[in-house]
Amino acid sequence: MKNIYLLGSTGSIGVQTLEIVQNDPDNFRIITLACNQNIEILKTQIRQFHPLLVSVGSAKDALKLANEFSNSIFVSGDEGLVKAATYDESDQNGLLVNALVGIAGLKPTIEAIKCKRNIALANKETLVVGGVLVKKLLEEFNVKLYPIDSEHSGLWQCLDHEDLTKIKKLYITASGGAFRDYSRENLESVIAEDALKHPNWQMGKKITIDSATMMNKGFEMIEACHLFDISIDKIEPVLHKESLVHAMVEFVDNSIIMQMSSHDMKLPISYALYYPERTKNVAQVLDVCKLKDLHFSQFDHERYPLLLTAVQAFKSGGTLPCVLNAANEAAVDLFLRGKIAFLEIETIITESLKKHEPVMNPTLEDLLLIDKIIKKTLYQKYDY
Amino acid sequence: MKNIYLLGSTGSIGVQTLEIVQNDPDNFRIITLACNQNIEILKTQIRQFHPLLVSVGSAKDALKLANEFSNSIFVSGDEGLVKAATYDESDQNGLLVNALVGIAGLKPTIEAIKCKRNIALANKETLVVGGVLVKKLLEEFNVKLYPIDSEHSGLWQCLDHEDLTKIKKLYITASGGAFRDYSRENLESVIAEDALKHPNWQMGKKITIDSATMMNKGFEMIEACHLFDISIDKIEPVLHKESLVHAMVEFVDNSIIMQMSSHDMKLPISYALYYPERTKNVAQVLDVCKLKDLHFSQFDHERYPLLLTAVQAFKSGGTLPCVLNAANEAAVDLFLRGKIAFLEIETIITESLKKHEPVMNPTLEDLLLIDKIIKKTLYQKYDY
Repeated sequence: MKNIYLLGSTGSIGVQTLEIVQNDPDNFRIITLACNQNIEILKTQIRQFHPLLVSVGSAKDALKLANEFSNSIFVSGDEGLVKAATYDESDQNGLLVNALVGIAGLKPTIEAIKCKRNIALANKETLVVGGVLVKKLLEEFNVKLYPIDSEHSGLWQCLDHEDLTKIKKLYITASGGAFRDYSRENLESVIAEDALKHPNWQMGKKITIDSATMMNKGFEMIEACHLFDISIDKIEPVLHKESLVHAMVEFVDNSIIMQMSSHDMKLPISYALYYPERTKNVAQVLDVCKLKDLHFSQFDHERYPLLLTAVQAFKSGGTLPCVLNAANEAAVDLFLRGKIAFLEIETIITESLKKHEPVMNPTLEDLLLIDKIIKKTLYQKYDY
Repeated sequence: MKNIYLLGSTGSIGVQTLEIVQNDPDNFRIITLACNQNIEILKTQIRQFHPLLVSVGSAKDALKLANEFSNSIFVSGDEGLVKAATYDESDQNGLLVNALVGIAGLKPTIEAIKCKRNIALANKETLVVGGVLVKKLLEEFNVKLYPIDSEHSGLWQCLDHEDLTKIKKLYITASGGAFRDYSRENLESVIAEDALKHPNWQMGKKITIDSATMMNKGFEMIEACHLFDISIDKIEPVLHKESLVHAMVEFVDNSIIMQMSSHDMKLPISYALYYPERTKNVAQVLDVCKLKDLHFSQFDHERYPLLLTAVQAFKSGGTLPCVLNAANEAAVDLFLRGKIAFLEIETIITESLKKHEPVMNPTLEDLLLIDKIIKKTLYQKYDY
């Protein structure tokens, strides 16, 4: 029996995690839930899973919920998220599922590590912004971090039990995003609505834009470095429009192992939840005899310049990945609200990085402060 | 340091094995060599590798060689092969590389197992004909059997360290053979020369015909059952004309792991020789960013009926796989020598199986005797 502490319960990953838990009550039990403001969905989840503690964004919502549900403790804000992540520190069978979006996910991850709780991680910012800190703590507290993401789960499935010295290169695939058939000129006039028609599947708004700019793939490269202890120079993106092959590992002898599955986040979630087991019929069956064609092509860095921007920020290190993420979060939000043009996302990020005086070995507090400053500066400039 | 006992040293697998040994004298040393009648190539190999014992097909050749090379022992015939496989029974670091073609490979494998020598196996007949016997002995003597074949090496690379209960299905790919674009009607008039133009690579004559009839894929399915302890109903062939993906493993959660590499037998040979290590730059680099397209399609059992014939012979068990192999060896030889038409290979095998009264739990002697009888009967009928 694994006890699940779920942050981001009303988002896409959170809801799918709860479906898995619901279908296997002998193996999983929900101990805490956390979301921001999706209170109606949260109420249904509370009725179904009877969490001991629930965290929401605002203190007002927490109070209202406490009046309605007498069997759960209600908390709120950033502190509430930490409480939901670290509740019952004595629990030896706990697994934190961190499916938050944004930098809010970083502190709960760090605090959960400190109470020796293993983590299934869908929150990208944890590793993009705080990777160096998190890695140190994982080692210090002997805690495991399992990725919830198609590409990293694919790498993990290909790499499990492998000696890192045998690895020559890791490849992660990219669908190309919503604008993959557009030229750079075409991109000048696109609007948020165009981007939200992602060719392969429906995702949250933020990640849809990150996929269209390829910042998402840059984030994934940074995450892969931290997850698999490998140099970013050994990680390469490959365009693959079918989105069936998620990752490939090239070994020193030039043999390649690839992971393939239908587009279904249930697979990486389930793989992380059940590890080291696999459970039956999670993803839709892929009939390999009817696959027909798989297409792969070289990544075009001129078409998608943000990927190299992300790689460079990671290589320079210190607070630069934090600036990369903060500027991107703000810029994507501004684009979604029609305040800036699509290609301005790139210039805003590049200029934020250029202006920043990096600090090496930042603390968590440094990172959270820089995140706030960068975002505030950008909102003051563009959100009027 | 591994001591190599190499049977079939002058064939394609044998020659490539020696290239690997030659390039890494710190890890490998040749102790014995065996071939049939390719004496000139063998002489060069003796001069280069200084084997302690050498086996050849005929006693006459053995005598001639003994006069020329005074530092090696020379033996001959089936008994010579066993001596080359089992030489120096006390050697704890020995590896038999069995790259013989045909049933001649079975007895040396069995005798090597009995002296606790691990085996890298390219000889298909060992498992197709004697799989049940061999598996029992492997367990009894705690000996490892490593496959030398692209498809089985691919499965092995995908499956290593995996719990068999997690596996739903194994797929092995097939190029389709030399006549893959021919209809059944077209096949009536093809001759050996047409078949020997294999679309993807140059191989020996026997395996080229076996690939064109798909008997080779049937043999591989039988071998995979024995190698990975899995039911033949869980093994499926897939047509894949690029011959880059060699094998796929579908897990119970419907995630698929595939192995891909350029067409180069050096990779499976090297993987078996170095296991559990991998060595650098064995196969040609596959630039995955320039892969373009991979095609997969369903296997057509009406187009290639011998595959199900092989599966059925394996399922019925006993001496039937031996008859399958013996009739195939004779029929392919008759076709290569222009004595029968291409499609007669199928009828000869089917009729040999139909006529045969199977014996369950055959001994090695039973198998070798039935092999002789089947071949003799067919040669008497067709080779006039």
